[in-house]
Amino acid sequence: MTSPVTNRQILLRNRPTGTPTLADFETVDVPVAALPDNGVLRRTIYLSLDPYMRGRMSDADSYATPVSLGQRMVGGTVSEIVESKNPAFKAGDFVTGYDGWQTFGVSNGGDLRKLNPADAPISTALGVLGMPGMTAYVGLLDIGQPKPGETVLVSAASGAVGSVVGQLARIKECRAVGVAGSKEKCDYVIKELGFDACVNYKDPDFMGALRAACPTGVDIYFENVGGAVLAAAMRLLNPFARIPLCGMISEYNATSPVPGPSLRPLLVKRALIKGFIVSEHPQRLPDFLRDCSAWLRAGRLKYREDIVEGLEAAPSAILKLFDGSNFGKLLVRVSPDPTARPA
Amino acid sequence: MTSPVTNRQILLRNRPTGTPTLADFETVDVPVAALPDNGVLRRTIYLSLDPYMRGRMSDADSYATPVSLGQRMVGGTVSEIVESKNPAFKAGDFVTGYDGWQTFGVSNGGDLRKLNPADAPISTALGVLGMPGMTAYVGLLDIGQPKPGETVLVSAASGAVGSVVGQLARIKECRAVGVAGSKEKCDYVIKELGFDACVNYKDPDFMGALRAACPTGVDIYFENVGGAVLAAAMRLLNPFARIPLCGMISEYNATSPVPGPSLRPLLVKRALIKGFIVSEHPQRLPDFLRDCSAWLRAGRLKYREDIVEGLEAAPSAILKLFDGSNFGKLLVRVSPDPTARPA
Repeated sequence: MTSPVTNRQILLRNRPTGTPTLADFETVDVPVAALPDNGVLRRTIYLSLDPYMRGRMSDADSYATPVSLGQRMVGGTVSEIVESKNPAFKAGDFVTGYDGWQTFGVSNGGDLRKLNPADAPISTALGVLGMPGMTAYVGLLDIGQPKPGETVLVSAASGAVGSVVGQLARIKECRAVGVAGSKEKCDYVIKELGFDACVNYKDPDFMGALRAACPTGVDIYFENVGGAVLAAAMRLLNPFARIPLCGMISEYNATSPVPGPSLRPLLVKRALIKGFIVSEHPQRLPDFLRDCSAWLRAGRLKYREDIVEGLEAAPSAILKLFDGSNFGKLLVRVSPDPTARPA
Repeated sequence: MTSPVTNRQILLRNRPTGTPTLADFETVDVPVAALPDNGVLRRTIYLSLDPYMRGRMSDADSYATPVSLGQRMVGGTVSEIVESKNPAFKAGDFVTGYDGWQTFGVSNGGDLRKLNPADAPISTALGVLGMPGMTAYVGLLDIGQPKPGETVLVSAASGAVGSVVGQLARIKECRAVGVAGSKEKCDYVIKELGFDACVNYKDPDFMGALRAACPTGVDIYFENVGGAVLAAAMRLLNPFARIPLCGMISEYNATSPVPGPSLRPLLVKRALIKGFIVSEHPQRLPDFLRDCSAWLRAGRLKYREDIVEGLEAAPSAILKLFDGSNFGKLLVRVSPDPTARPA
């Protein structure tokens, strides 16, 4: 392969007010950086699009530094090594890293983890075997502490995190109940992922349907949506319920703080809400990869991907996360995947 | 002492809608129950009035069974033994129990704990050395997990729970910041109880004043009020903040659910809210009594009582908890305290 000379990047041009628009982004072509000593050059194959990216576009107080205006958008990636001066990597290796919205990445390789395409499709390193899957694993197991027979409720149940939460709940012998935004998604959650029930939050009698789906109440509510689903879940909590909180996508584009539900159920039920960020739990990565890789191979963890083509599609594609129109883990195919098997 | 024949009781007559009124209670005189085998008869000296009692007047879902209509109101008491067939107690002993709103109590004694008036004033068994003090102890130490140099914020800071929270925070080498409802209360909290700062929630610039009082943010917010104070505290949370939640008095008389603050700060700050009920932590009673008795004797724990006279005053007095007009631990002196030293 001849060395590439041009690196296409997508930069953050404006801080969005409310929902981002295409005008908030800018596409530029820059020279590929020269390889430093020990350097590794790789070509992006998959870019992950995730809800947390909305936070990085804003300079509101958050747990992470925002992307500066004029800088490249951040994001998890799966790539193929093009050229390496680092003995740990060689051309043709597949890796996952955090190269962001660009077609080529360069670093000393300390930010990369090698992938073996024989173990699992490399795209799964951004989903069921990546950050979203590990968010489900850490939040459900470490904060939720599920016990057999308990009911686990999860919002965005067909999404990258929620789909894993419910399947892990089943593996832990819990009743898994999902909430999703269409009949098609609910059918998938029940029939493909094996949840016990799934309720459409657009159902006119959502509260009644949710109550019927959780006849013995809710012991764990895995929260990644906020808003009306949270308020409904709060009404169904059992004593000593646990609410791992990893996201509130329904509020990310709000231009003023969104009131929450009354917290009185937390008192009455002696319940717990705990916010967490998966990147602060790196010590759990080996356990997560061991367990979820095994469950994936055994067919006990299933997943679905929603892939858009070309880096240029990223700005429009990320909006699908906020209007609920994506169905499965949202990925951008930035360049062809040489490991892909014919469908 | 001749055996009493009449027991005055206050019964719950109606379930209050919103703030209770005097018409929701009824005073009756009934014969003192005959002493069973092993029975203990005692005369109520002090009756404790506490916010949780509002919950017992309601049949809304809660952690405890409500008082039935026509039944005696419940409550913690300090009493003197009048007559005993139980070898563990003798006439003249002082005990604390849960006899409720009545002048005499009878049981087999299994619900009583003996008090030594030489150790501490017997009324403290309902306050700083009783349920409110233990609520502060368990919530701050076990859920809050204070570390030296952290900032502990507590609402209702001059109250029975809040006053102990702030003093324990100081003992644990934290910055103690209170919120209270008058200048007089704030002065007391700072000058008498030794808090580092106290903010009046009626201050027109409450948020600014609270921010100034917590220059390095809030690591623990001990929540027993809800409403606007909670919303303000949420804006000042530090990463990994903890919010023990033992009460939401500002909402107890609400006739519909009160919206809460946005929970997004919990996510951004990876914070925790945990509801708890002190009666579910009985294993901590010996630690609490050992530590807080020692701190009380050493002058490191101070307290203030707001005593009303006569059982008949209980229905009007409990309203003071909800309009903030009490100042210190609210007690009813049901009969003279023979251990009281002249002021």
